[in-house]
Amino acid sequence: MSKASDVWEQADRFVLDNDEFLVVSHLHPDGDAIGSTLAVGFILKALGKRYVMVNESPVPQKFRFLPGVEDILSPEEVQAREKPFRRAIAVDAADADRMGITWNLLGSDADILNIDHHPTNDRFGTVNVIDSDAAATAEILCLWADRLQVTWDRDLASCLYTGLLTDTGGFRYSNTTPKVMALASRLLRCGVDASGIADRALETMTREQIALVRRALDSLSFSEDGRIGWMWLKREDFQETGADEEELDGIVNYARNVVGVDVGILFRETEEGTVKASFRSREMVDVGKLAQSFGGGGHARAAGCSLSESGEKVERAVLEQVTRALQGGGS
Amino acid sequence: MSKASDVWEQADRFVLDNDEFLVVSHLHPDGDAIGSTLAVGFILKALGKRYVMVNESPVPQKFRFLPGVEDILSPEEVQAREKPFRRAIAVDAADADRMGITWNLLGSDADILNIDHHPTNDRFGTVNVIDSDAAATAEILCLWADRLQVTWDRDLASCLYTGLLTDTGGFRYSNTTPKVMALASRLLRCGVDASGIADRALETMTREQIALVRRALDSLSFSEDGRIGWMWLKREDFQETGADEEELDGIVNYARNVVGVDVGILFRETEEGTVKASFRSREMVDVGKLAQSFGGGGHARAAGCSLSESGEKVERAVLEQVTRALQGGGS
Ligand SMILES: [Mn+2]
Ligand SMILES: [Mn+2]
Repeated sequence: MSKASDVWEQADRFVLDNDEFLVVSHLHPDGDAIGSTLAVGFILKALGKRYVMVNESPVPQKFRFLPGVEDILSPEEVQAREKPFRRAIAVDAADADRMGITWNLLGSDADILNIDHHPTNDRFGTVNVIDSDAAATAEILCLWADRLQVTWDRDLASCLYTGLLTDTGGFRYSNTTPKVMALASRLLRCGVDASGIADRALETMTREQIALVRRALDSLSFSEDGRIGWMWLKREDFQETGADEEELDGIVNYARNVVGVDVGILFRETEEGTVKASFRSREMVDVGKLAQSFGGGGHARAAGCSLSESGEKVERAVLEQVTRALQGGGS
Repeated sequence: MSKASDVWEQADRFVLDNDEFLVVSHLHPDGDAIGSTLAVGFILKALGKRYVMVNESPVPQKFRFLPGVEDILSPEEVQAREKPFRRAIAVDAADADRMGITWNLLGSDADILNIDHHPTNDRFGTVNVIDSDAAATAEILCLWADRLQVTWDRDLASCLYTGLLTDTGGFRYSNTTPKVMALASRLLRCGVDASGIADRALETMTREQIALVRRALDSLSFSEDGRIGWMWLKREDFQETGADEEELDGIVNYARNVVGVDVGILFRETEEGTVKASFRSREMVDVGKLAQSFGGGGHARAAGCSLSESGEKVERAVLEQVTRALQGGGS
């Protein structure tokens, strides 16, 4: 059989042959990180294993409805309670650094099972189950639960669904494959509350976020031909609204979503005094390349860069470059 | 067999035994109305039938990407070209009035096949295929295409997907069933561009809409306990932004989506000088009942009413009632 099935075999053995596990994911966790952490927990529970779930960052408010979420501990809580772990299962973390200080909870001889879908995953595990075709780590875990003959009960299914839902942007990104939808259908059959989860995980906003959206919209400008839309968030916008950078999620899309706009940009002043530009492109421009020309990076449709010039200069330089890219009809 | 299968039999015969059809839907069409109109067109085309698609209202910009959309004519265009139609297929229209003046294109002896999912459908057709369990008329048409052995090609599938997507609020409403997701999976297998359609149908906003969101957010207020959030749009907000009522779509959700809010309200002044209140509820309050107490109506989670008092009076009365409902812990 193929090498892939050997890896799966090793993953199965990793859990079946051991008794106690630390389950970790990346810091500043998203829905897939939290959903996958909890899903692995439920899988281990079903297999009668002992486990501790940990994350360096607190679980964001919008994922606190998930079953078992109160059992995700901080590194301090784990340190106070346990000796170093010898087996860890890392989910949705592209490299060991992304796990933050939870790394220190592992013994020097610890084995790691690394389950992830990021194409950039550096295979830091002892066993590495990396499927970059998967829309989410949760998608890989659906398959794994089946392999391990763990029944998808409502709790497990809700966590897996949350991962699929959030990593596909609510089934809106291009990773929304027929397979994702077929898994979603099967998860819903397990009693998952599709609307309740979408509501909490995707629609809920903090007051600070709303205030930030207001300010961003207040600054929305368009090029003469309407093909570029851009917004500004200054230091005082963060200070006065009390919002932090993690609450920026999706704001740049407002610029790009306007009828006629090909490229949407959010400029924001960082605490370090630089200007960060986030780009979203509809179809015409490869903003990944564009961001690269400013020393940044990203994908064709979503990218960003950081510049240490004055806001005025950055805006002028970026808009010129985007205009050129639009005239070129390509990147 | 059941009566339901008889009705399907009649629907099949309706198209197989006739040659020319007018395909109609409701005015101010949504994604399901347009998607279903086009889907029926593709089904008839596959069966070698002649047909004309019509809608009283222009197709909204965000659905103009759909295949075949340029063939949806206005009643005037149809009237100039054709004699009265003897067979019509009405999709997603709960009653004949919802078809607007397209009704006049039918001969007095016309037979109508009425395909719809609204529980309020008044069965105005000669044959009525009404399935109120379906999330969208497009869901019923998936089944019908199968019955008629019409292959789901990419064009047909894209129209059906658009209906499913929009009527489930992007797979976020409680009508997002396992069946919907299984159909979505099958439609995607036919080559549907999930992200392209989501982008156009769900994310695109007009500049006027953006401007209206800004003004609504500027007015966002909260009750002391944060459980009620409300916004105001006055006549001048519509006049100064150039937005019309059809562009209000979803704005009330901003109030409801804020962390801690149980009931979100959008008050707006209408051209007639009344105040309309739209309600969105998370879980605690049945806003359908609440709206009813003001002579309005709707569902437990989304409802509205219209009041002819001054804005100040309306706001006070509504907020009092919502507060009472929240204290009651129920409706
Ligand atoms: Mn992920
Ligand atoms: Mn519908």
